[in-house]
Amino acid sequence: MQRLSVDVCLTPELYHLSEDKEAIVVVIDILRATSAICTAFETGVEKMIPVATLEAARAFKDKGYIVGAERDGMQVEGFDFGNSPYSYKEPNLKGKTVVITTTNGTKSINIAKEAHQLLIGAFTNITALTDYLLKEKRNVILLCSGWKGKFNLEDALFAGAVAEILSKDEAFVDFSDSALATNYLYQTALKDPYIFLSNSSHRKRLAKLKLKKDIKYCLQFDQTQIIPEYKEGFLIRMS
Amino acid sequence: MQRLSVDVCLTPELYHLSEDKEAIVVVIDILRATSAICTAFETGVEKMIPVATLEAARAFKDKGYIVGAERDGMQVEGFDFGNSPYSYKEPNLKGKTVVITTTNGTKSINIAKEAHQLLIGAFTNITALTDYLLKEKRNVILLCSGWKGKFNLEDALFAGAVAEILSKDEAFVDFSDSALATNYLYQTALKDPYIFLSNSSHRKRLAKLKLKKDIKYCLQFDQTQIIPEYKEGFLIRMS
Repeated sequence: MQRLSVDVCLTPELYHLSEDKEAIVVVIDILRATSAICTAFETGVEKMIPVATLEAARAFKDKGYIVGAERDGMQVEGFDFGNSPYSYKEPNLKGKTVVITTTNGTKSINIAKEAHQLLIGAFTNITALTDYLLKEKRNVILLCSGWKGKFNLEDALFAGAVAEILSKDEAFVDFSDSALATNYLYQTALKDPYIFLSNSSHRKRLAKLKLKKDIKYCLQFDQTQIIPEYKEGFLIRMS
Repeated sequence: MQRLSVDVCLTPELYHLSEDKEAIVVVIDILRATSAICTAFETGVEKMIPVATLEAARAFKDKGYIVGAERDGMQVEGFDFGNSPYSYKEPNLKGKTVVITTTNGTKSINIAKEAHQLLIGAFTNITALTDYLLKEKRNVILLCSGWKGKFNLEDALFAGAVAEILSKDEAFVDFSDSALATNYLYQTALKDPYIFLSNSSHRKRLAKLKLKKDIKYCLQFDQTQIIPEYKEGFLIRMS
């Protein structure tokens, strides 16, 4: 019997302490990067190029790429859109390559790119994601993107939801303290994640920007069966 | 009306993101350094010298100091004791200076020593500590020592207990996401913190070392009214 581990990196700053090149890493940025990436693939985007800096994003824009760029919750001027999932529902994105840079999520992708496999997780693809993790039977690291290096509640909540599902399979036995803590948080939030997050810093930040509709969307389960995967510089639909 | 903040550093690795030189920082290492330090002052220890490395501890030992040294949950050979609170109950420590080095706690003290005020917190002095924080009315940073840079459940639990008490005072209004999360954890654990921690990594580690008695002691509230404070290289009893 395998004894698999589930660890949660509560922020990218802690990733070096969890790193395990044999593990599957799931990058989480619920509000809103990883939710938006899942939406893009559901719309039919062919591939995405996640870049960490605005400079890199600008270079792609200059070459004629479609580029989404967000900083501090807002679309950056001069780009096609920010990271609202609704922007990625546009039917004419079908078959296209889209470049994306966000405050937190694309940085997490960057630091974890040496992992055995790097997947994108969000409430919107949670069942597809966890079905895959249960089937693969490998150690799992849930990498919360947080906010500028700090912990945030919504990414922890999602990590706890995944931990909850994995804990039902007897192969997953070694849950780190952070995995246990996020699982307790998820159990507390179960009745209504939207209410649970009502005091969270990023929800307040987005509410000020009138993005309540985005928040509600990002907390919906199973809007897609697609698991985006990072491979050699690109996000693609996992085959 | 003041609008004070309560932030929780979930591990020392995140302290640079929270640093606020005007805030009161509370160092937390429930199992067992900060619990042991509180016990030492209750016994009547005059002052303590926290040092980060075994080398520094050895230099003090060579000069004839009483030295407690712990690594990986065990007393280090060649020193007087480890970090079991029971070691610090020895009546002949009264009036003495004791040097201490531990895996996590003394390192946290070291990184936060530039704070406006640096206090030592544990369940064993929680009421004295929170009464003081409520009276002082300053921003508070609760610095969890964790385990070798990683998050641990028992320090987060204590941070959540302090956050809970501060949240009853209307001056404390700005709770970070980590403060909210630890507070949720504390509410979940309220009925029985010992059971709550039953799966935690460090509790398992200490249980293997037959330290259940220590764990139970460290989860008892209000064994002392003393708040140890760090000042210019020493831990002293706050006057």
